[in-house]
Amino acid sequence: MKIAVDAMGGDHAPMEIVRGARDAAQELGVSIILVGDQDRIVKELDGDDAGGLISIVHASEVVGMGEHPVSAIRKKKNSSIVVATQLVKEGVAQAVVSAGSTGAQMASSLFILGRIAGVDRPAISTLMPSAKGVVVLLDVGANVDCKPQHLMQFAVMGSLYAEKVLGLPNPRVGLLNIGSEETKGNELTLTTHKLLKDAKLNFIGNVEGRDLFLAGSDVAVCDGFVGNVVLKAAEGFAIGLLGMFQQELGRLEDVIGRERCMHIMSGFKRRMDYAEYGGAPLLGVNGVSVICHGSSRARAIKNAIRVAKETVEQGLVPAIKESLENDVVKGVDE
Amino acid sequence: MKIAVDAMGGDHAPMEIVRGARDAAQELGVSIILVGDQDRIVKELDGDDAGGLISIVHASEVVGMGEHPVSAIRKKKNSSIVVATQLVKEGVAQAVVSAGSTGAQMASSLFILGRIAGVDRPAISTLMPSAKGVVVLLDVGANVDCKPQHLMQFAVMGSLYAEKVLGLPNPRVGLLNIGSEETKGNELTLTTHKLLKDAKLNFIGNVEGRDLFLAGSDVAVCDGFVGNVVLKAAEGFAIGLLGMFQQELGRLEDVIGRERCMHIMSGFKRRMDYAEYGGAPLLGVNGVSVICHGSSRARAIKNAIRVAKETVEQGLVPAIKESLENDVVKGVDE
Repeated sequence: MKIAVDAMGGDHAPMEIVRGARDAAQELGVSIILVGDQDRIVKELDGDDAGGLISIVHASEVVGMGEHPVSAIRKKKNSSIVVATQLVKEGVAQAVVSAGSTGAQMASSLFILGRIAGVDRPAISTLMPSAKGVVVLLDVGANVDCKPQHLMQFAVMGSLYAEKVLGLPNPRVGLLNIGSEETKGNELTLTTHKLLKDAKLNFIGNVEGRDLFLAGSDVAVCDGFVGNVVLKAAEGFAIGLLGMFQQELGRLEDVIGRERCMHIMSGFKRRMDYAEYGGAPLLGVNGVSVICHGSSRARAIKNAIRVAKETVEQGLVPAIKESLENDVVKGVDE
Repeated sequence: MKIAVDAMGGDHAPMEIVRGARDAAQELGVSIILVGDQDRIVKELDGDDAGGLISIVHASEVVGMGEHPVSAIRKKKNSSIVVATQLVKEGVAQAVVSAGSTGAQMASSLFILGRIAGVDRPAISTLMPSAKGVVVLLDVGANVDCKPQHLMQFAVMGSLYAEKVLGLPNPRVGLLNIGSEETKGNELTLTTHKLLKDAKLNFIGNVEGRDLFLAGSDVAVCDGFVGNVVLKAAEGFAIGLLGMFQQELGRLEDVIGRERCMHIMSGFKRRMDYAEYGGAPLLGVNGVSVICHGSSRARAIKNAIRVAKETVEQGLVPAIKESLENDVVKGVDE
C-alpha cells in the first residue's frame, strides 16, 4: 500500500510531517509518498528513507491557511494537496493524508476524487474521547447548513466508519439533539429523527450534549455548525481545565502529591489528545482522504497514516458506496 | 422586596426549596412567599419562618416535568408555577424563582407577564464558568430555530444582564460561530454578524467554541439549539472528567497525594457547579423570572434568590425595555 502525505500542510510542516511519515513507514510497513518541496523534504529526510519505503513527488506550491479553498486549488494546480490527491485519483497511492487547510483538502477531494453516488455532501468526522472510548462525531464543519437527508447520510457513513475502521460491531447511532424525546428538537432534527427511525441502522434515538462524553452512543450525528462548535468547546474546556490544574499544582509544596496529580492529569491529557487518533477520513468522497489537525506533530501524522491504512484495508469507501447506492437511500426516498 | 418561590418545582422539592428559601431570607434579608402545597410546606418549615420573612401561598397543583408546558399551564390554573407568576403580575411579589419544568416556567412567564415590547422571543441564559470568571451564554434552549433579529435581541439582553446583574462594565459581546472571520458561519450567523456590527454594543466579532472557556467574551450569543447542546456537552464533560479523576484517585495508595489531588479537584468542581450561580433570569419577559436547574438543592435555590434580588434591584427589566424599544431596534429596522 502507498499513502500520499502532504508534506507542506500544517503548522509544523515539513519537519514534523516528514518525521511522522518516517515513523509510520517503519512501524506500519507502509510505503509513503511525501508530496511537496523536494529540496526541503530531502533536507528533512537527511538520507533516511526508511529502508526505501519513502519516496518524494515534487510539488512547487502550497495552499495557505488564509486562502479561499476553492479558488486556491483551482489556481494552484501544482500545490502539494492537489498533487497528493491526484496520486490517489491516478491509483498511484491508495490514500492521501494532510494537516493543511481543511477547506483546501475538502475541495481537492471533491473536485479530484469526486463524491460517492448517493452522497449529497461529504462530511468531516472526528473522534471525541468519551468515558468509554471514543464517539464518532460528524459533521464537524464541512456543511454548516444541512437538510435532513444530509444528516441521514452522515449517519450511514459514520456508522460504517465506526464498524469498519474502529471495529465496533453494530455501532449505536445517536442524533445530537436538545432532549431525548422524539418530540424535541429544531426543524432539522425533528425531520431527521423520522428518517433515522426507518433506516437500516442501529439508531438509538436522540443523544444530548452530555452523552458525548458519557458514551451515550458510538456515533453522534449533527450539522457541521453544531459539530464544530461542540468540538471546539471541548478543546477549549480541556485547555482551560489543564491550565487551571497546572496553576494549582504549581502552588503545591508537597512534591509527591504533585507528582501523583501530574500523573493522573497526564493520563487525562492523553485521552483528550487528538494526536492519539491522528485524523479522520473525509466521509463521502470517492477515495480515502484523511484530515489531520493543523497543529499535528509527528505522532499525530503517524497515527493519521495508520487511520488511512486501516480505512483502505477495511474497505470503507466501497462499503459506503454499497450502502448509499442501495438500501438506505431507497428508504429515504420512499 | 418579596420573592415568590415555586416550592413544588424541581427534583428535590419541596424540602431543598424550602431550605434554600429560608437560608436566603436569613442571609439576604428578603421576604419570601413559598407557593405550593401548604401542608407540605408547613411541615418542611417546622415552625421556622425566618423571623416572619417567610409566608405561604397555597397552590393545589404541580406541573410535572413530562407534561406539555403550554397545555399544562392552561389546564392547571392553580399550579405552583402559575400562582407564583401571578403574584409577580399582581405586584405582590417582585420576582419568581423556580426549579420546576423550564418549559412551564417560560409559558407561565410569557402568558402571565408578557413579552417586553421589541422582544420577539424571550431567551434563557446561563453562566458558563470560564478561565477568568463566567460567560453569559444565550439562548440555551428557549428558541431552537432563530432568525438574525432574535440573536440580535439576545445580544442586547445578554449585554444588559452582564452589565447590570454581573457588574461587568461595557461587556464584550461575541457571536458564537465556527470561525473568527466575518465570512465564516451558517446563514443565520452570517446575517446576524452584520446586524451586530451596526448595533450599539461592544461587539467583538465571532467567538468559537473554545473561547467559551477561555474568556474570549463576556457574552456569547447563539440559537437555542446550539446553546443547549454546548451547555449540556460542558456538563457531560465535567461529569465524565470528575468520574475519570475519581477512579484514578481511588487507586492511589499515597494518602497525602490523594488528599492534595482531591483538594485541587474540589476547587474545579466548585467552579463548574451551577449551584454557585443558582439560576438565571428569563430575558425578555416583562418581569423577573429566574430559572433554576431541575436538580437544584438548597444552596442553588438560595443563590437563585440572590440573582432574582439583584435583577430587581439593578433594574434589568426596565433597562431591556428602554434599549429594545429605542435605539437598537431602530438600528435593526433601518
